[in-house]
Amino acid sequence: MKGKVYLVGAGVLGVENLTMHAHRLISEADVILYDRLVDSSLLKLAKPGAEIVYAGKEPGDGPQKQKELTEMMVCYARSGKIVVRLKSGDPFVFGRGGEELISLREAGIDAEVVPGLTSAVALPTLACIPLTMRDISSSVLILTGHLAKPEEEAYFKAHARFPGTVVLLMSMSSLSRISRYLVEGGMSPERPVAIITSSGGLRKEFYRLGELIGREDRPDGPGVVVIGEVVEAFMH
Amino acid sequence: MKGKVYLVGAGVLGVENLTMHAHRLISEADVILYDRLVDSSLLKLAKPGAEIVYAGKEPGDGPQKQKELTEMMVCYARSGKIVVRLKSGDPFVFGRGGEELISLREAGIDAEVVPGLTSAVALPTLACIPLTMRDISSSVLILTGHLAKPEEEAYFKAHARFPGTVVLLMSMSSLSRISRYLVEGGMSPERPVAIITSSGGLRKEFYRLGELIGREDRPDGPGVVVIGEVVEAFMH
Repeated sequence: MKGKVYLVGAGVLGVENLTMHAHRLISEADVILYDRLVDSSLLKLAKPGAEIVYAGKEPGDGPQKQKELTEMMVCYARSGKIVVRLKSGDPFVFGRGGEELISLREAGIDAEVVPGLTSAVALPTLACIPLTMRDISSSVLILTGHLAKPEEEAYFKAHARFPGTVVLLMSMSSLSRISRYLVEGGMSPERPVAIITSSGGLRKEFYRLGELIGREDRPDGPGVVVIGEVVEAFMH
Repeated sequence: MKGKVYLVGAGVLGVENLTMHAHRLISEADVILYDRLVDSSLLKLAKPGAEIVYAGKEPGDGPQKQKELTEMMVCYARSGKIVVRLKSGDPFVFGRGGEELISLREAGIDAEVVPGLTSAVALPTLACIPLTMRDISSSVLILTGHLAKPEEEAYFKAHARFPGTVVLLMSMSSLSRISRYLVEGGMSPERPVAIITSSGGLRKEFYRLGELIGREDRPDGPGVVVIGEVVEAFMH
Protein backbone atom coordinates (compact mmCIF):
# COMPACT_ATOMS: atom_id res chain seq x y z
CA MET A 1 0.00 0.00 0.00
CA LYS A 2 1.28 3.42 -0.95
CA GLY A 3 1.07 6.31 1.49
CA LYS A 4 0.43 9.91 0.62
CA VAL A 5 0.64 13.30 2.32
CA TYR A 6 -2.01 15.96 1.83
CA LEU A 7 -1.07 19.49 2.88
CA VAL A 8 -4.56 20.70 3.74
CA GLY A 9 -5.79 24.23 4.42
CA ALA A 10 -7.95 24.24 7.54
CA GLY A 11 -9.31 27.69 6.72
CA VAL A 12 -10.50 29.94 9.54
CA LEU A 13 -12.65 29.31 12.63
CA GLY A 14 -14.65 26.04 12.56
CA VAL A 15 -15.92 23.29 10.29
CA GLU A 16 -18.32 25.58 8.38
CA ASN A 17 -15.38 27.25 6.66
CA LEU A 18 -13.64 24.04 5.57
CA THR A 19 -13.86 23.09 1.91
CA MET A 20 -15.72 19.93 0.94
CA HIS A 21 -12.40 18.40 -0.16
CA ALA A 22 -10.61 19.21 3.11
CA HIS A 23 -13.58 17.85 5.07
CA ARG A 24 -13.45 14.53 3.25
CA LEU A 25 -9.69 14.17 3.59
CA ILE A 26 -9.75 14.88 7.33
CA SER A 27 -12.47 12.28 7.84
CA GLU A 28 -10.58 9.64 5.83
CA ALA A 29 -6.98 10.19 7.01
CA ASP A 30 -5.00 7.58 8.97
CA VAL A 31 -2.88 10.31 10.57
CA ILE A 32 -3.62 13.98 11.17
CA LEU A 33 -0.74 16.33 12.02
CA TYR A 34 -2.29 19.61 13.09
CA ASP A 35 -0.92 23.11 13.58
CA ARG A 36 -1.18 25.38 16.58
CA LEU A 37 -3.96 27.62 15.24
CA VAL A 38 -6.19 24.88 13.83
CA ASP A 39 -9.68 24.90 15.40
CA SER A 40 -10.11 21.87 17.67
CA SER A 41 -13.61 21.14 16.26
CA LEU A 42 -11.94 19.97 13.03
CA LEU A 43 -10.19 17.12 14.80
CA LYS A 44 -13.54 15.62 15.80
CA LEU A 45 -14.09 14.79 12.12
CA ALA A 46 -11.33 12.17 12.22
CA LYS A 47 -12.35 8.53 11.72
CA PRO A 48 -12.21 6.16 14.70
CA GLY A 49 -8.66 4.94 15.25
CA ALA A 50 -6.98 7.78 13.37
CA GLU A 51 -3.76 9.02 14.94
CA ILE A 52 -4.01 12.71 15.84
CA VAL A 53 -0.68 14.41 16.44
CA TYR A 54 0.02 17.97 17.53
CA ALA A 55 2.64 19.37 15.16
CA GLY A 56 2.50 23.06 15.95
CA LYS A 57 5.61 25.13 16.09
CA GLU A 58 5.97 27.63 18.90
CA PRO A 59 7.48 31.07 18.32
CA GLY A 60 11.23 30.56 18.66
CA ASP A 61 11.30 26.95 17.45
CA GLY A 62 14.20 26.56 15.06
CA PRO A 63 14.58 24.69 11.75
CA GLN A 64 15.21 21.45 13.70
CA LYS A 65 11.52 21.24 14.63
CA GLN A 66 10.50 21.65 10.97
CA LYS A 67 12.99 18.92 10.00
CA GLU A 68 11.57 16.52 12.61
CA LEU A 69 8.08 17.20 11.35
CA THR A 70 9.04 16.45 7.76
CA GLU A 71 10.73 13.22 8.85
CA MET A 72 7.56 12.22 10.68
CA MET A 73 5.44 12.79 7.55
CA VAL A 74 7.91 10.83 5.42
CA CYS A 75 7.92 7.98 7.92
CA TYR A 76 4.12 7.70 8.11
CA ALA A 77 3.76 7.90 4.31
CA ARG A 78 6.42 5.21 3.76
CA SER A 79 4.51 2.89 6.08
CA GLY A 80 1.51 3.26 3.78
CA LYS A 81 -0.54 5.76 5.77
CA ILE A 82 -2.71 8.54 4.37
CA VAL A 83 -1.44 11.63 6.17
CA VAL A 84 -3.29 14.93 6.45
CA ARG A 85 -0.99 17.78 7.41
CA LEU A 86 -3.56 20.29 8.63
CA LYS A 87 -2.42 23.90 8.45
CA SER A 88 -4.50 26.92 9.46
CA GLY A 89 -5.66 29.12 6.59
CA ASP A 90 -4.17 28.25 3.21
CA PRO A 91 -1.01 26.09 3.23
CA PHE A 92 0.74 28.29 0.66
CA VAL A 93 0.26 31.72 2.28
CA PHE A 94 2.90 32.24 5.00
CA GLY A 95 2.45 28.62 6.03
CA ARG A 96 5.76 27.07 4.93
CA GLY A 97 3.71 24.72 2.75
CA GLY A 98 6.11 25.34 -0.14
CA GLU A 99 9.10 24.23 1.92
CA GLU A 100 7.25 21.14 3.19
CA LEU A 101 6.17 20.17 -0.33
CA ILE A 102 9.75 20.43 -1.60
CA SER A 103 11.06 18.29 1.29
CA LEU A 104 8.40 15.62 0.72
CA ARG A 105 9.08 15.46 -3.01
CA GLU A 106 12.81 15.22 -2.39
CA ALA A 107 12.09 12.23 -0.17
CA GLY A 108 10.08 10.65 -2.98
CA ILE A 109 6.74 10.94 -1.17
CA ASP A 110 3.49 11.43 -3.09
CA ALA A 111 2.13 14.80 -1.90
CA GLU A 112 -0.76 17.11 -2.81
CA VAL A 113 -1.78 20.59 -1.68
CA VAL A 114 -5.42 21.41 -0.84
CA PRO A 115 -6.25 25.11 -0.60
CA GLY A 116 -8.13 26.60 2.34
CA LEU A 117 -9.69 29.95 3.19
CA THR A 118 -6.79 32.23 4.04
CA SER A 119 -7.39 34.43 7.07
CA ALA A 120 -6.07 37.40 5.03
CA VAL A 121 -9.25 37.34 2.94
CA ALA A 122 -11.79 35.27 4.88
CA LEU A 123 -11.64 37.07 8.22
CA PRO A 124 -12.28 40.52 6.65
CA THR A 125 -15.13 39.01 4.59
CA LEU A 126 -16.69 37.40 7.68
CA ALA A 127 -16.29 40.73 9.49
CA CYS A 128 -18.06 42.50 6.58
CA ILE A 129 -15.02 44.48 5.45
CA PRO A 130 -14.51 44.22 1.67
CA LEU A 131 -10.83 44.32 0.68
CA THR A 132 -11.66 46.11 -2.57
CA MET A 133 -14.37 48.64 -3.41
CA ARG A 134 -14.97 50.51 -6.63
CA ASP A 135 -13.44 54.03 -6.45
CA ILE A 136 -11.98 53.30 -2.98
CA SER A 137 -9.39 50.55 -3.37
CA SER A 138 -8.43 48.34 -6.29
CA SER A 139 -5.33 46.67 -4.86
CA VAL A 140 -4.54 44.50 -1.84
CA LEU A 141 -1.18 44.03 -0.14
CA ILE A 142 -0.66 41.13 2.28
CA LEU A 143 2.19 41.46 4.79
CA THR A 144 3.38 39.39 7.74
CA GLY A 145 4.35 40.52 11.23
CA HIS A 146 6.54 37.41 11.68
CA LEU A 147 9.93 38.75 10.64
CA ALA A 148 13.27 38.84 12.37
CA LYS A 149 13.34 42.07 14.40
CA PRO A 150 16.21 43.75 12.51
CA GLU A 151 14.37 43.21 9.20
CA GLU A 152 10.94 44.50 10.13
CA GLU A 153 11.66 48.23 10.15
CA ALA A 154 12.90 48.27 6.54
CA TYR A 155 10.12 45.86 5.47
CA PHE A 156 7.26 47.99 6.76
CA LYS A 157 8.77 51.33 5.75
CA ALA A 158 9.24 50.00 2.19
CA HIS A 159 5.47 49.36 2.01
CA ALA A 160 4.31 52.47 3.87
CA ARG A 161 3.38 54.43 0.73
CA PHE A 162 1.07 51.70 -0.59
CA PRO A 163 -2.23 53.38 -1.49
CA GLY A 164 -4.55 50.33 -1.48
CA THR A 165 -5.78 47.99 1.24
CA VAL A 166 -3.09 46.52 3.52
CA VAL A 167 -3.72 43.24 5.35
CA LEU A 168 -1.35 42.29 8.17
CA LEU A 169 -1.06 38.67 9.25
CA MET A 170 0.54 37.42 12.49
CA SER A 171 1.00 40.95 13.71
CA MET A 172 -1.09 41.22 16.88
CA SER A 173 1.78 41.37 19.36
CA SER A 174 3.88 43.77 17.24
CA LEU A 175 1.13 46.12 16.12
CA SER A 176 2.37 49.16 17.99
CA ARG A 177 5.82 48.85 16.41
CA ILE A 178 4.43 48.11 12.93
CA SER A 179 2.11 51.15 13.10
CA ARG A 180 5.05 53.36 14.02
CA TYR A 181 7.16 52.07 11.11
CA LEU A 182 4.27 52.65 8.69
CA VAL A 183 3.66 56.21 9.90
CA GLU A 184 7.40 57.00 9.91
CA GLY A 185 7.56 55.60 6.36
CA GLY A 186 4.87 58.00 5.18
CA MET A 187 1.48 56.34 5.77
CA SER A 188 -1.17 58.71 7.11
CA PRO A 189 -1.86 58.23 10.84
CA GLU A 190 -5.51 58.93 9.94
CA ARG A 191 -5.93 55.77 7.85
CA PRO A 192 -8.73 53.63 9.31
CA VAL A 193 -7.78 50.25 10.78
CA ALA A 194 -9.89 47.21 11.61
CA ILE A 195 -8.48 44.62 13.99
CA ILE A 196 -10.28 41.32 13.50
CA THR A 197 -9.57 38.56 16.01
CA SER A 198 -10.79 35.00 15.65
CA SER A 199 -10.01 33.39 18.95
CA GLY A 200 -13.27 32.07 20.43
CA GLY A 201 -15.47 33.67 17.75
CA LEU A 202 -15.08 36.71 15.54
CA ARG A 203 -14.55 40.18 17.03
CA LYS A 204 -13.70 43.51 15.42
CA GLU A 205 -12.39 46.83 16.68
CA PHE A 206 -11.81 50.07 14.81
CA TYR A 207 -9.00 52.61 15.15
CA ARG A 208 -6.98 55.20 13.27
CA LEU A 209 -3.45 54.01 12.49
CA GLY A 210 -1.80 56.66 14.68
CA GLU A 211 -3.84 55.53 17.72
CA LEU A 212 -2.13 52.15 17.70
CA ILE A 213 1.34 53.55 18.30
CA GLY A 214 2.33 53.02 21.92
CA ARG A 215 -0.40 50.49 22.69
CA GLU A 216 1.81 47.59 23.69
CA ASP A 217 -0.80 45.59 25.55
CA ARG A 218 -2.21 43.35 22.83
CA PRO A 219 -1.55 39.62 23.36
CA ASP A 220 -0.38 37.49 20.45
CA GLY A 221 -3.23 35.55 18.89
CA PRO A 222 -5.00 34.61 15.69
CA GLY A 223 -6.50 37.41 13.64
CA VAL A 224 -5.78 39.96 10.94
CA VAL A 225 -5.47 43.72 10.68
CA VAL A 226 -6.93 45.64 7.74
CA ILE A 227 -5.63 49.14 7.01
CA GLY A 228 -7.27 51.32 4.38
CA GLU A 229 -10.24 53.36 3.30
CA VAL A 230 -12.38 50.24 2.69
CA VAL A 231 -12.71 50.03 6.47
CA GLU A 232 -14.42 53.42 6.60
CA ALA A 233 -17.56 52.34 4.76
CA PHE A 234 -18.25 49.59 7.28
CA MET A 235 -17.07 51.16 10.53
CA HIS A 236 -20.56 51.09 12.02
CA MET B 1 -41.84 34.83 6.75
CA LYS B 2 -38.72 36.92 6.51
CA GLY B 3 -36.45 36.65 3.50
CA LYS B 4 -32.71 36.95 3.53
CA VAL B 5 -29.88 37.38 1.04
CA TYR B 6 -26.60 35.47 1.38
CA LEU B 7 -23.69 36.80 -0.69
CA VAL B 8 -21.87 33.50 -1.11
CA GLY B 9 -18.36 32.84 -2.40
CA ALA B 10 -18.45 30.00 -4.93
CA GLY B 11 -14.67 29.58 -4.75
CA VAL B 12 -12.81 28.16 -7.74
CA LEU B 13 -13.50 25.23 -10.08
CA GLY B 14 -16.11 22.73 -8.81
CA VAL B 15 -17.96 21.56 -5.71
CA GLU B 16 -14.80 20.20 -3.97
CA ASN B 17 -13.59 23.75 -3.35
CA LEU B 18 -16.86 25.04 -1.87
CA THR B 19 -16.97 25.57 1.87
CA MET B 20 -19.32 23.46 3.96
CA HIS B 21 -21.37 26.58 4.72
CA ALA B 22 -21.68 27.61 1.07
CA HIS B 23 -22.65 24.05 0.12
CA ARG B 24 -25.47 23.98 2.67
CA LEU B 25 -26.79 27.42 1.69
CA ILE B 26 -26.85 26.55 -2.03
CA SER B 27 -28.76 23.34 -1.33
CA GLU B 28 -31.32 25.15 0.86
CA ALA B 29 -31.92 28.38 -1.11
CA ASP B 30 -35.26 29.26 -2.71
CA VAL B 31 -33.51 31.40 -5.34
CA ILE B 32 -29.95 31.25 -6.67
CA LEU B 33 -28.60 34.21 -8.61
CA TYR B 34 -25.31 33.11 -10.14
CA ASP B 35 -22.43 34.94 -11.77
CA ARG B 36 -20.80 34.37 -15.14
CA LEU B 37 -17.73 32.50 -13.86
CA VAL B 38 -19.52 30.22 -11.39
CA ASP B 39 -18.96 26.53 -12.19
CA SER B 40 -22.18 24.97 -13.50
CA SER B 41 -21.76 21.87 -11.30
CA LEU B 42 -22.62 24.03 -8.27
CA LEU B 43 -26.11 24.71 -9.59
CA LYS B 44 -26.92 21.00 -9.49
CA LEU B 45 -26.83 21.21 -5.68
CA ALA B 46 -30.02 23.32 -5.67
CA LYS B 47 -33.11 21.78 -4.08
CA PRO B 48 -36.00 20.72 -6.36
CA GLY B 49 -38.12 23.72 -7.26
CA ALA B 50 -35.44 26.33 -6.54
CA GLU B 51 -35.37 29.23 -8.98
CA ILE B 52 -31.99 29.48 -10.70
CA VAL B 53 -31.32 32.81 -12.35
CA TYR B 54 -28.33 33.87 -14.41
CA ALA B 55 -27.16 37.22 -13.03
CA GLY B 56 -23.77 37.59 -14.69
CA LYS B 57 -22.57 40.92 -15.95
CA GLU B 58 -20.84 41.02 -19.31
CA PRO B 59 -17.82 43.26 -19.90
CA GLY B 60 -19.28 46.62 -20.86
CA ASP B 61 -22.49 46.31 -18.84
CA GLY B 62 -23.09 49.60 -17.04
CA PRO B 63 -24.32 50.44 -13.53
CA GLN B 64 -27.92 49.92 -14.71
CA LYS B 65 -27.41 46.15 -14.77
CA GLN B 66 -26.06 46.18 -11.21
CA LYS B 67 -29.07 48.25 -10.12
CA GLU B 68 -31.51 45.79 -11.70
CA LEU B 69 -29.77 42.92 -9.98
CA THR B 70 -30.00 44.59 -6.58
CA GLU B 71 -33.70 45.30 -7.14
CA MET B 72 -34.22 41.65 -7.99
CA MET B 73 -32.56 40.54 -4.74
CA VAL B 74 -34.60 43.03 -2.73
CA CYS B 75 -37.79 41.87 -4.37
CA TYR B 76 -37.19 38.17 -3.73
CA ALA B 77 -36.13 38.79 -0.11
CA ARG B 78 -39.25 40.96 0.55
CA SER B 79 -41.45 38.12 -0.68
CA GLY B 80 -39.90 35.92 2.02
CA LYS B 81 -37.42 33.95 -0.09
CA ILE B 82 -33.97 32.78 0.96
CA VAL B 83 -31.72 34.13 -1.77
CA VAL B 84 -28.19 32.94 -2.51
CA ARG B 85 -26.23 35.41 -4.60
CA LEU B 86 -23.48 33.14 -5.85
CA LYS B 87 -20.29 34.96 -6.79
CA SER B 88 -17.12 33.30 -8.10
CA GLY B 89 -14.16 33.33 -5.68
CA ASP B 90 -14.70 35.43 -2.56
CA PRO B 91 -17.52 38.01 -2.67
CA PHE B 92 -15.33 40.74 -1.14
CA VAL B 93 -12.29 40.53 -3.44
CA PHE B 94 -12.97 42.45 -6.67
CA GLY B 95 -16.49 41.06 -6.66
CA ARG B 96 -18.56 44.18 -5.89
CA GLY B 97 -19.86 42.35 -2.85
CA GLY B 98 -19.28 45.45 -0.73
CA GLU B 99 -21.47 47.57 -2.99
CA GLU B 100 -24.20 44.91 -3.05
CA LEU B 101 -24.18 44.59 0.74
CA ILE B 102 -24.53 48.37 1.16
CA SER B 103 -27.46 48.48 -1.31
CA LEU B 104 -29.22 45.59 0.43
CA ARG B 105 -28.80 47.13 3.86
CA GLU B 106 -30.06 50.47 2.60
CA ALA B 107 -33.17 48.67 1.38
CA GLY B 108 -33.62 47.14 4.85
CA ILE B 109 -32.88 43.58 3.72
CA ASP B 110 -31.24 41.08 6.06
CA ALA B 111 -27.97 40.13 4.38
CA GLU B 112 -24.90 38.05 5.23
CA VAL B 113 -21.57 37.45 3.50
CA VAL B 114 -20.08 33.96 3.23
CA PRO B 115 -16.40 33.80 2.24
CA GLY B 116 -15.12 31.57 -0.55
CA LEU B 117 -11.73 30.52 -1.87
CA THR B 118 -10.43 33.49 -3.83
CA SER B 119 -8.80 32.59 -7.13
CA ALA B 120 -5.89 34.91 -6.20
CA VAL B 121 -4.77 32.41 -3.57
CA ALA B 122 -6.50 29.11 -4.37
CA LEU B 123 -5.48 28.77 -8.03
CA PRO B 124 -1.75 29.19 -7.28
CA THR B 125 -2.09 26.72 -4.37
CA LEU B 126 -3.85 24.17 -6.59
CA ALA B 127 -1.15 24.74 -9.23
CA CYS B 128 1.53 24.13 -6.54
CA ILE B 129 2.91 27.66 -6.58
CA PRO B 130 3.30 29.05 -3.03
CA LEU B 131 2.70 32.80 -2.86
CA THR B 132 5.24 33.17 -0.06
CA MET B 133 8.47 31.28 0.64
CA ARG B 134 11.03 31.86 3.35
CA ASP B 135 13.97 33.93 2.01
CA ILE B 136 12.23 34.32 -1.40
CA SER B 137 9.06 36.35 -0.86
CA SER B 138 7.31 37.59 2.26
CA SER B 139 4.68 39.86 0.70
CA VAL B 140 1.83 39.44 -1.77
CA LEU B 141 0.23 42.12 -3.94
CA ILE B 142 -3.12 41.44 -5.61
CA LEU B 143 -4.02 43.59 -8.64
CA THR B 144 -6.85 43.59 -11.15
CA GLY B 145 -6.71 43.86 -14.94
CA HIS B 146 -10.27 45.24 -15.02
CA LEU B 147 -9.63 48.97 -15.05
CA ALA B 148 -10.69 51.72 -17.38
CA LYS B 149 -8.05 51.91 -20.13
CA PRO B 150 -6.77 55.40 -19.33
CA GLU B 151 -6.17 54.39 -15.69
CA GLU B 152 -4.30 51.16 -16.20
CA GLU B 153 -0.92 52.55 -17.30
CA ALA B 154 -0.47 54.62 -14.12
CA TYR B 155 -1.88 51.81 -11.97
CA PHE B 156 0.58 49.17 -13.14
CA LYS B 157 3.58 51.50 -13.32
CA ALA B 158 2.92 52.56 -9.70
CA HIS B 159 3.24 48.91 -8.62
CA ALA B 160 6.13 47.94 -10.93
CA ARG B 161 8.83 48.21 -8.27
CA PHE B 162 7.07 45.83 -5.87
CA PRO B 163 9.64 43.23 -4.77
CA GLY B 164 7.29 40.46 -3.56
CA THR B 165 4.85 38.16 -5.31
CA VAL B 166 2.34 39.87 -7.63
CA VAL B 167 -0.99 38.19 -8.44
CA LEU B 168 -3.02 39.56 -11.34
CA LEU B 169 -6.76 38.87 -11.51
CA MET B 170 -8.96 39.33 -14.59
CA SER B 171 -5.97 40.14 -16.73
CA MET B 172 -5.83 37.42 -19.38
CA SER B 173 -6.88 39.55 -22.34
CA SER B 174 -4.69 42.53 -21.36
CA LEU B 175 -1.57 40.65 -20.32
CA SER B 176 0.66 41.93 -23.10
CA ARG B 177 -0.19 45.55 -22.22
CA ILE B 178 0.15 44.96 -18.45
CA SER B 179 3.56 43.29 -18.91
CA ARG B 180 4.75 46.28 -20.93
CA TYR B 181 3.60 48.78 -18.27
CA LEU B 182 5.34 46.74 -15.53
CA VAL B 183 8.64 46.54 -17.46
CA GLU B 184 8.47 50.23 -18.41
CA GLY B 185 7.81 50.99 -14.73
CA GLY B 186 10.98 49.19 -13.68
CA MET B 187 10.10 45.51 -13.13
CA SER B 188 12.72 43.11 -14.46
CA PRO B 189 11.69 41.43 -17.76
CA GLU B 190 13.42 38.32 -16.36
CA ARG B 191 10.94 37.84 -13.50
CA PRO B 192 9.31 34.41 -13.78
CA VAL B 193 5.58 34.30 -14.52
CA ALA B 194 3.03 31.51 -14.13
CA ILE B 195 -0.24 31.77 -16.02
CA ILE B 196 -2.84 29.54 -14.37
CA THR B 197 -6.13 29.06 -16.20
CA SER B 198 -9.13 27.32 -14.72
CA SER B 199 -11.53 26.91 -17.61
CA GLY B 200 -12.29 23.20 -18.03
CA GLY B 201 -9.68 22.12 -15.46
CA LEU B 202 -6.46 23.61 -14.20
CA ARG B 203 -3.58 24.40 -16.58
CA LYS B 204 -0.32 26.25 -16.05
CA GLU B 205 2.27 27.80 -18.35
CA PHE B 206 5.58 29.43 -17.48
CA TYR B 207 7.23 32.51 -19.01
CA ARG B 208 9.58 35.38 -18.26
CA LEU B 209 7.76 38.71 -17.94
CA GLY B 210 9.43 40.22 -21.01
CA GLU B 211 8.25 37.33 -23.21
CA LEU B 212 4.62 38.29 -22.67
CA ILE B 213 4.99 41.72 -24.29
CA GLY B 214 3.55 41.66 -27.80
CA ARG B 215 1.63 38.36 -27.32
CA GLU B 216 -1.85 39.66 -28.02
CA ASP B 217 -3.48 36.33 -28.75
CA ARG B 218 -4.74 35.25 -25.32
CA PRO B 219 -8.53 35.01 -25.03
CA ASP B 220 -10.28 36.44 -21.99
CA GLY B 221 -11.11 33.78 -19.47
CA PRO B 222 -10.92 32.74 -15.84
CA GLY B 223 -7.50 32.36 -14.28
CA VAL B 224 -4.71 34.21 -12.50
CA VAL B 225 -1.17 35.29 -13.27
CA VAL B 226 1.60 35.00 -10.65
CA ILE B 227 4.74 37.08 -11.10
CA GLY B 228 7.74 36.60 -8.83
CA GLU B 229 10.61 34.43 -7.72
CA VAL B 230 8.30 31.96 -5.93
CA VAL B 231 7.42 30.67 -9.41
CA GLU B 232 11.03 29.63 -10.04
CA ALA B 233 11.13 26.91 -7.38
CA PHE B 234 8.17 25.10 -8.95
CA MET B 235 8.73 25.69 -12.67
CA HIS B 236 9.23 21.99 -13.39
